[in-house]
Amino acid sequence: MDILSIKETDIYQIVEGRKQRESDDFQQVDQRVEEIVKRIRSEGEKAVLQYVKELDGVELNSLHVTKQEVEEAFNSVKEELSEILQEAKNNIESYHQHQKEQSWYTNQQPGIWLGQQVTPIERVGVYVPGGKAAYPSTVLMNVIPAKVAGVEEIIVTTPVGEDRKVNPLTIVAATIAGADQILKVGGAHGIATLAYGTENFKAVNKITGPGNAYVARAKKYVFGDVGIDMIAGPSEVCILADENAYSEYVAADLLAQAEHDELASAILVTDSHQLATQVQKALKEQMEGLNRQSILQHSILNQSAIYVVTNMDVGFQLVNELAPEHLELLVDQPFEQLSRIKNAGAIFLGEYSPEPLGDYWAGPNHTLPTSGTAKFSSPLGVYDFMKKSSVIYYDQKALNSVGGKIQRFANEEGLDGHAASIRKRLKKMLDIFSN
Amino acid sequence: MDILSIKETDIYQIVEGRKQRESDDFQQVDQRVEEIVKRIRSEGEKAVLQYVKELDGVELNSLHVTKQEVEEAFNSVKEELSEILQEAKNNIESYHQHQKEQSWYTNQQPGIWLGQQVTPIERVGVYVPGGKAAYPSTVLMNVIPAKVAGVEEIIVTTPVGEDRKVNPLTIVAATIAGADQILKVGGAHGIATLAYGTENFKAVNKITGPGNAYVARAKKYVFGDVGIDMIAGPSEVCILADENAYSEYVAADLLAQAEHDELASAILVTDSHQLATQVQKALKEQMEGLNRQSILQHSILNQSAIYVVTNMDVGFQLVNELAPEHLELLVDQPFEQLSRIKNAGAIFLGEYSPEPLGDYWAGPNHTLPTSGTAKFSSPLGVYDFMKKSSVIYYDQKALNSVGGKIQRFANEEGLDGHAASIRKRLKKMLDIFSN
Repeated sequence: MDILSIKETDIYQIVEGRKQRESDDFQQVDQRVEEIVKRIRSEGEKAVLQYVKELDGVELNSLHVTKQEVEEAFNSVKEELSEILQEAKNNIESYHQHQKEQSWYTNQQPGIWLGQQVTPIERVGVYVPGGKAAYPSTVLMNVIPAKVAGVEEIIVTTPVGEDRKVNPLTIVAATIAGADQILKVGGAHGIATLAYGTENFKAVNKITGPGNAYVARAKKYVFGDVGIDMIAGPSEVCILADENAYSEYVAADLLAQAEHDELASAILVTDSHQLATQVQKALKEQMEGLNRQSILQHSILNQSAIYVVTNMDVGFQLVNELAPEHLELLVDQPFEQLSRIKNAGAIFLGEYSPEPLGDYWAGPNHTLPTSGTAKFSSPLGVYDFMKKSSVIYYDQKALNSVGGKIQRFANEEGLDGHAASIRKRLKKMLDIFSN
Repeated sequence: MDILSIKETDIYQIVEGRKQRESDDFQQVDQRVEEIVKRIRSEGEKAVLQYVKELDGVELNSLHVTKQEVEEAFNSVKEELSEILQEAKNNIESYHQHQKEQSWYTNQQPGIWLGQQVTPIERVGVYVPGGKAAYPSTVLMNVIPAKVAGVEEIIVTTPVGEDRKVNPLTIVAATIAGADQILKVGGAHGIATLAYGTENFKAVNKITGPGNAYVARAKKYVFGDVGIDMIAGPSEVCILADENAYSEYVAADLLAQAEHDELASAILVTDSHQLATQVQKALKEQMEGLNRQSILQHSILNQSAIYVVTNMDVGFQLVNELAPEHLELLVDQPFEQLSRIKNAGAIFLGEYSPEPLGDYWAGPNHTLPTSGTAKFSSPLGVYDFMKKSSVIYYDQKALNSVGGKIQRFANEEGLDGHAASIRKRLKKMLDIFSN
């Protein structure tokens, strides 16, 4: 990995250079997605089962994971592992409880009540990638905030393996997290099933969770009919470190990020040439001991960088412009520096808070804004599973005292029907007074 | 407008029938939008000025509204009107103050800090439609929540008229609301200017505000590089009324909604045949006195309906399935009925809280989820102009006590680099202990 020297005036160019625009080459995927969604919308479960056969290569009789399959899953997963999932669940739940919003109402002027009613979304679908691998952390991070929000029904959907079964760890995680149903459908057909339902399954109101290009494009396609979470780009870490940071940790954390996939990016920003050189060396050494060699080669060589900045002020500026998904703050007194961070999905403070601690354990959500979108968006949270309604009450006297001004405003925008709706109420009141 | 009798089993069909899917016929618009955005991205202000000339038919020297133009605008707008805008601004600001979120941190376990840092988005662009008409309420409803959120720079952009000037009422509203700059660019070129900036204008991080098809598609196109608010569909009102509702008010409020545009929809849900008939009659009479005849004809005839339900339980159920943008609750004891409403953008309680009160005056935002999206989304608010970062701190002891479990979890997902990042920290600690 190259070491690049950076001064303040270089920041703009670096950030622009790193911006990855979504490829426009989704035509074929989009065409197929549209076909799948339309057919499932019109033909229902029959079509879903046919797509599972055609695309996943297995024949199913029913889309639903049965109680017996849940039992079997718990029996096949070691108790120690279930307990780890349960403990992670408790941490995630405890953190997300803080995000729960309450309705509020005010009555600051006589005859006027204003407020905001906060209610959970009724039905939510969670997409979980599957097949051979299991992603229990994805299950926990999506289902738990929905559960905390008070969502009535949470449905997990995930592709089955060749044995026609959902990975047992996914089932155990979904059950521990409190999902109400598990469906055996992956891909665009999974998203279509969630969004429009079938004879045997009622459509959801919102879909969250990661997936491949078909899943991502299908989510985009159904958006509007249902809500979706943000469509995530490749994962990233940025480590802002001063001369006292321990190079072995920095290298390990860069590699942990880089192993996700070939497009993952791992960036070190430091004011220390010495640290940069040590990290470069440690990366090479540590990489040899890891399993995902070919992915690491790609992501470390093509997507990653070490930036040596002229001073830490420039470092903070660069970090805020990059707006990384994950930020490790390996600096002296990280709590004191926290408020200098404006844009980041999750911020890890100090040398004993490595990024994987957040992926699995600490409690905050691991679904985070990528590709600089932390400048305007937030981690997945309880707020993504609730919605607000404004509430307005004026009594007769309150409306009467301002009705003239509202009519004036409405007429100024050329909407005399709006003015009339107010005027009629005032008129009637005058009638009342005159009788 | 027809009167239709509705029982519980009809609800599904009604709601499905009303769902308006976004037309796919945007190909030409999209092609033009892409061309405009790409050219502005590469050529900057020169291209913007050329598009203003080509598409708006006026030659500008500068994109910015000058201080002198602001002064002129204030001189040309009657003081009475400025005062009305100021009073509306105070109401809107006061309501939105309640939405401001604070950062929070917890330290519930020794050695562990968790939290959520809430920060304003740095730069926000507000699109305001323009030309002949002025939409001061749009300006107030978009700029004020951004201002309350603490956004550093708020830029309004709006097309100029033939006189090369921005409508004075728009300038006055933007200034009262606290906008920092006003640009004279409408259409897709306005959105491109906000999203990517020029030599003389720094790009924003998020764009909100309504516009025509070019504006809407351009917002969709730049989404990802910047944030956007929801793209709104046609405006709607649903009035849930019992036998005691006053038919003159109901009719006036249906018409106030219907006058917005030909696709606007106005729906009455009631358990009273008598009210339905009276409203039908009042609609016909009141319509004759209004200006926007041709629009009203279309929206009342083609988009609107009176549903007579078998009882009010079915009424509430229907309303929740429709998830209307605006809901008027013209029932006995509306406060007691409020919690029965699950899905609605804004809820207006009782006969002296007509919908136009919310459009201009009361304080809650008038930018609301349309087309049933209130099932999963919320009014525009301060929360749309802030974003969150998770914060995680573990000390050495805290990490050590759970490090083994995190490694187990990571290995279960096949990510040994994640496990190594944890393991190295535990190892070093053991080294320290053994030295």
